[in-house]
Amino acid sequence: MTDENKQRLDSYIEAVNRRIDIYKNSYGGNSSDHQYEVTQAMWYSLEAGGKRIRPVLAEEFCRVCGGSSEQALTAAAAVEMIHTFSLIHDDLPCMDNDDYRRGRPSCHKAFREDTALLAGDALENLAYRIIADDDKLSAEKKVMLIRELTEAVGIHGMIGGQVIDMYNDGTEVFSDEKLLKMYMMKTSALLRAACRMGCICAGAYDRADDAGNYADRLGLAFQIIDDILDITSSEEVLGKTCGSDAASGKCTYAAVHGVKASEEYAAVLTDEAMTYLERFEDNKFLIWLTEQLLHRKS
Amino acid sequence: MTDENKQRLDSYIEAVNRRIDIYKNSYGGNSSDHQYEVTQAMWYSLEAGGKRIRPVLAEEFCRVCGGSSEQALTAAAAVEMIHTFSLIHDDLPCMDNDDYRRGRPSCHKAFREDTALLAGDALENLAYRIIADDDKLSAEKKVMLIRELTEAVGIHGMIGGQVIDMYNDGTEVFSDEKLLKMYMMKTSALLRAACRMGCICAGAYDRADDAGNYADRLGLAFQIIDDILDITSSEEVLGKTCGSDAASGKCTYAAVHGVKASEEYAAVLTDEAMTYLERFEDNKFLIWLTEQLLHRKS
Repeated sequence: MTDENKQRLDSYIEAVNRRIDIYKNSYGGNSSDHQYEVTQAMWYSLEAGGKRIRPVLAEEFCRVCGGSSEQALTAAAAVEMIHTFSLIHDDLPCMDNDDYRRGRPSCHKAFREDTALLAGDALENLAYRIIADDDKLSAEKKVMLIRELTEAVGIHGMIGGQVIDMYNDGTEVFSDEKLLKMYMMKTSALLRAACRMGCICAGAYDRADDAGNYADRLGLAFQIIDDILDITSSEEVLGKTCGSDAASGKCTYAAVHGVKASEEYAAVLTDEAMTYLERFEDNKFLIWLTEQLLHRKS
Repeated sequence: MTDENKQRLDSYIEAVNRRIDIYKNSYGGNSSDHQYEVTQAMWYSLEAGGKRIRPVLAEEFCRVCGGSSEQALTAAAAVEMIHTFSLIHDDLPCMDNDDYRRGRPSCHKAFREDTALLAGDALENLAYRIIADDDKLSAEKKVMLIRELTEAVGIHGMIGGQVIDMYNDGTEVFSDEKLLKMYMMKTSALLRAACRMGCICAGAYDRADDAGNYADRLGLAFQIIDDILDITSSEEVLGKTCGSDAASGKCTYAAVHGVKASEEYAAVLTDEAMTYLERFEDNKFLIWLTEQLLHRKS
């Protein structure tokens, strides 16, 4: 069973990677042009071997809702482009100033800072463009997908969460309420979009709320595990700078409540997430994936 | 006649400003939240009193194509959000490092650098969101508008032009071909989107190409006049740092060919632009506006 799940996971990752490669050829610049530099930076970060959690969720929710996982590939790639854009901008010197990402120099270290800035801007743009350009999606679906994605990205979603995180510099002790709100915006919002967009691609609009409620809990658990790993893991395993939260005096759930209590809360959130998965038939892979994410080491 | 044109110009600017104000209330954050800081930065730059050329063009092309100017307000505001996002990111220290914009401190000077970065990201996102959210537009029109806008913004448009401009630091003498290609991407692309989107809002899809061809020439002329003003104007009149092109060794059309030849070329381009305007009935305002833009002092 685990082998079967692992195979499905790999095939989903391969499928979205292939799609991202196709976009490189159709939207990437010509190698003789200066703008090729930014195209290279965009795909350097896109192809950095992330876990592709968001694309996998979009593909699988599309399948369990009666579509084929291929139908969700445009949405899956779009969400991954948004995620990558956010990582590139997040790593910039004026933000978290992180030199490493996924075991490699972060985008502004591998390229120039201005190149990284524009690569992020261009990825944000391209995410919406590939949805609008997809001939296989109806205009109604395209609009629904773009609404989901823009709402998840904006000031009340991912970007808003990053803003709150900017003020999380040790000068203010965040209440649990504020901390969890920040996690919901910074992490859950885009996972929610991925899951809901998978349902939309399948035409199963009435399943989007259950998928979104699952993603909210998954995102909180995922972020809390991120906090824990920042305390307990090593740079080698994690592929990025460790202990950076503590060094910058950041308030995190794990820092406030300790590793053990945080692991317990992540498990509670995962249980809640599972109750939403139970509303979907053929949910074995999603249950397995959720467990994997809870027990990850990087 | 001039009074009538001026009145129309003012009413168009007022209309898009009102619309931008409505979006502030519906999409802006709550004043008690941290993300309000970024909302403030977004509208600080959006409301900085720009010339609103792009919104005005969208509104007027919609009207001359048989629609009402109001029908184009969502598209007009979206284009202005994209324009403002590009200015905010362009002014950042890692880009042009400009401290002033439109006579006021640039966004990252009035706010924090990270706030300005995220305000730009959020404006890019909001531009697509307001189109997707507009109940008065059909799904087909929304998709057409988003396709126009994403194409104009991306790596082969505005952002691509900014990339080429990054390498315009005095180390390479740009050929006229390369310089004009950069201007087409950096400046014409978004003007083209504004004009074409105006036609689309009116449902006059077959007029978009003439509008776009007009905008290409207008953009080139506009950019060359910008170069000239950077040489001949003062900070007081221009509202931003002067002589910055020469100081940074930037290759511009005016720097290469001199002010007089540049003024003549801008006039030739304007004549070409006018031939496309002649294909539209009721084109008096557009002709007047184009002449105004050629004779501007700031």
